[in-house]
Amino acid sequence: MTDLCKTPGLAESVVALMDIDPERLEAVYVLATKYAEEIGSSLTFTKTADLEEALGDADFVINTAMAGGHDYLEKVRRIGEKHGYYRGIDAQEFNMVSDYFTFSNYNQFALFLTVARAVERLAPKGWYVQAANPVFEGVTLITRTVPIKVVGFCHGHYALNAIFAALELDPAEVDWQVAWFNHAIWLNRFRYRGEDAYPLLDRWIAEKAKDWKPKSPFDDQLSPVALDMYRFYGVMPVGDTVRNATWRCHRDLSTKVRWYGEPWGGADSEPGWTWYQETLRQATEIMKFVAKTLVRNPFIKLRELGEQGARFGIPLEFAAELEKLLDHQRKSGEQHVPFIDALLNDQGARFVLNIPNDGILSGIPRAVAVEVPAWVDKDGIHPEAIEPPLPPRVVNYYLYPRMIRMEMALDASLTGDLRVLKEVLYRDPRTRSDAQVEAVLAEILDLPENVEMKRHYCQSP
Amino acid sequence: MTDLCKTPGLAESVVALMDIDPERLEAVYVLATKYAEEIGSSLTFTKTADLEEALGDADFVINTAMAGGHDYLEKVRRIGEKHGYYRGIDAQEFNMVSDYFTFSNYNQFALFLTVARAVERLAPKGWYVQAANPVFEGVTLITRTVPIKVVGFCHGHYALNAIFAALELDPAEVDWQVAWFNHAIWLNRFRYRGEDAYPLLDRWIAEKAKDWKPKSPFDDQLSPVALDMYRFYGVMPVGDTVRNATWRCHRDLSTKVRWYGEPWGGADSEPGWTWYQETLRQATEIMKFVAKTLVRNPFIKLRELGEQGARFGIPLEFAAELEKLLDHQRKSGEQHVPFIDALLNDQGARFVLNIPNDGILSGIPRAVAVEVPAWVDKDGIHPEAIEPPLPPRVVNYYLYPRMIRMEMALDASLTGDLRVLKEVLYRDPRTRSDAQVEAVLAEILDLPENVEMKRHYCQSP
Repeated sequence: MTDLCKTPGLAESVVALMDIDPERLEAVYVLATKYAEEIGSSLTFTKTADLEEALGDADFVINTAMAGGHDYLEKVRRIGEKHGYYRGIDAQEFNMVSDYFTFSNYNQFALFLTVARAVERLAPKGWYVQAANPVFEGVTLITRTVPIKVVGFCHGHYALNAIFAALELDPAEVDWQVAWFNHAIWLNRFRYRGEDAYPLLDRWIAEKAKDWKPKSPFDDQLSPVALDMYRFYGVMPVGDTVRNATWRCHRDLSTKVRWYGEPWGGADSEPGWTWYQETLRQATEIMKFVAKTLVRNPFIKLRELGEQGARFGIPLEFAAELEKLLDHQRKSGEQHVPFIDALLNDQGARFVLNIPNDGILSGIPRAVAVEVPAWVDKDGIHPEAIEPPLPPRVVNYYLYPRMIRMEMALDASLTGDLRVLKEVLYRDPRTRSDAQVEAVLAEILDLPENVEMKRHYCQSP
Repeated sequence: MTDLCKTPGLAESVVALMDIDPERLEAVYVLATKYAEEIGSSLTFTKTADLEEALGDADFVINTAMAGGHDYLEKVRRIGEKHGYYRGIDAQEFNMVSDYFTFSNYNQFALFLTVARAVERLAPKGWYVQAANPVFEGVTLITRTVPIKVVGFCHGHYALNAIFAALELDPAEVDWQVAWFNHAIWLNRFRYRGEDAYPLLDRWIAEKAKDWKPKSPFDDQLSPVALDMYRFYGVMPVGDTVRNATWRCHRDLSTKVRWYGEPWGGADSEPGWTWYQETLRQATEIMKFVAKTLVRNPFIKLRELGEQGARFGIPLEFAAELEKLLDHQRKSGEQHVPFIDALLNDQGARFVLNIPNDGILSGIPRAVAVEVPAWVDKDGIHPEAIEPPLPPRVVNYYLYPRMIRMEMALDASLTGDLRVLKEVLYRDPRTRSDAQVEAVLAEILDLPENVEMKRHYCQSP
């Protein structure tokens, strides 16, 4: 929203906020309205709990929702662990990201389809923007089932900056390319001032890798696992790709710590994920608290709230964050708004987008979502030619296995064939018996949140 | 050889027998010479232990050798089991066939390359015929590395006859097609007298499957695992494809028995494979014994040997077998000789061949060996259009995972990168730790048979 307010070409837009949680909806609405007014934007906001009302005739429909929220995910993870599936049944080789549930969050896939079909019906010329995870499965699902324009966003590729910073490169002079799937992107091209930059990375590894320490659970771009993948595959994994290793690096907490660094063992370990959830919870609480404070003190400005935060019981971090948000020159760095600006106002720019492959990447079927760099302008999306191509080892050992799991997730959620979910678990190295598979799925399907899921899967053969 | 003798158009051929085992070579030579003479063929035989001498200027070079023989395979299997890999490290999901070693028989891959390169050098217009396993890996390997004509044979698709017999179908009136990879073929087309024949199979399953019992360890075409795969994938797996299930059906002997039938639990269980090895040992012993008997009694005829077997200490089974062999009208059913006859003498016929994909099957890279039905005549190999295509579930859940393992096997044996063999095991559900992987590979590499393999893998990074 702050990006929208800072984008002159989109100043007259109407933003329809939609949420089924009235408290959160109200908080966002209050904050957005206040912010727009204060920064001098003529953006208009509406709010509703009704999906159809929100998206009537929209040019862009941004879906950021997670069905069930984090509480549901943790509940399902606990059931998985009870039955011998460390970190839950959705933690799978090449998808260890803790909120990227592809098998047990049927409701999320159903929600994707509900929104996309509503777009088809009510805003057929609009773009459906998949910002909620799982982006890979989501964009592929919509591509195959709903005839609308779809694009997915992730910010994983910004982890490139961690590499540039470590090697002390000027980002403006790096010629880089990343591609393949969401959370499975690789630095196929890495040149600096006209020369291959991989030798610079090799030197960093030889000289400095031993001193590396993560600054947060998510700081893994130069972790031992990333470097091991680089050595084995021949190119660097980028962003969340690093989290998505095999069980070799995820067997248990001490294994994770060895590969992802002390003390957390990466974002997807028990302490790493607790850290993330706590951070998320705090941010949400602050947002709600600030919104309430604004309602109670309607004449106060956001800037004053930042400056005098302590007076209102608002933490320091928020004050610092607010200063950035109120800086006209400073955008979030997320791609959503610049993408819209590029398309609508011909503000051509380069993005990394999740779009239907449709022949962009050879060796990958056409109706699979790929994450690729593309130039976007008023004429649309122009994917870059990928050069050089990816080493076959990445395609065969990392991308195909990941693609197979995507296919299984889509097959299960489209057909309602419970045998597919079982098949996923039969092939899971944590599975010891058919009984274990039956028990874990039965308990997940019996959750009150999964009445629909159970109906979906248990009416089929 | 008996097929060659019974094929008039190939009567003038010269057959060069080559084996590094002098006793076996001599036995085959004696038997072949005697047989040709007795059946009235003018085929000529030569014998040599020298590869280059054998294949100079050959039109067809048939490779049936297994480097190290069964003793080596069993030795490696025992090492695997000692380190926690039930049925050995080469037993893998979608490749459970007990002598289809793709990872630990480096010598077999090296032998394939030695023979193929000799063909390129000494018989550059000849066909290299891959009759030794692993056919899938072998044909793909040669396709990618040696510019010669290559074709691979398997008899797995003859298991179709078990289906036709059970359903009481006249094979001549069945319109069938099978395809994809060696040991991974599926009955995509199954029509009888112009109508879909799958309902006939469904009826057999409903009425008769419960009474099914295997007649030998290899009799699995209508076993519970085959029917389960049919139900899940939507088409029937054919031949060795049935053996290549996931660990779900291969965890231990009792699991195998449940899926492959009493009492053996299929060909790849402990008792099933013992049965096979014993059968093979007996056949080899009889062959050597018969050859010696012929040398000692140079004037006796093979027919007499069959009729008076007991007098010479020759078992009854051999007598029965000999009668078939001496019947001019009865060929082995193997494809090798009819294939040669089709090409050289325009005796057009339909085969199921392993050849480079080269666009035959969509979704599969061009330089991967596929097993497909093809018409062969003097103009060459004409692969059939595959219709209907295979259900995506088979492609995604069975063929891709199998293809990935083929790629890993080729990558390892071509690059000598030991990390690839480790990676295979890191992903193996039987692996509990890196130490287990190191230990099992070290012990295999330390075998006296693996001096070359160790040099190959341990000079790389």
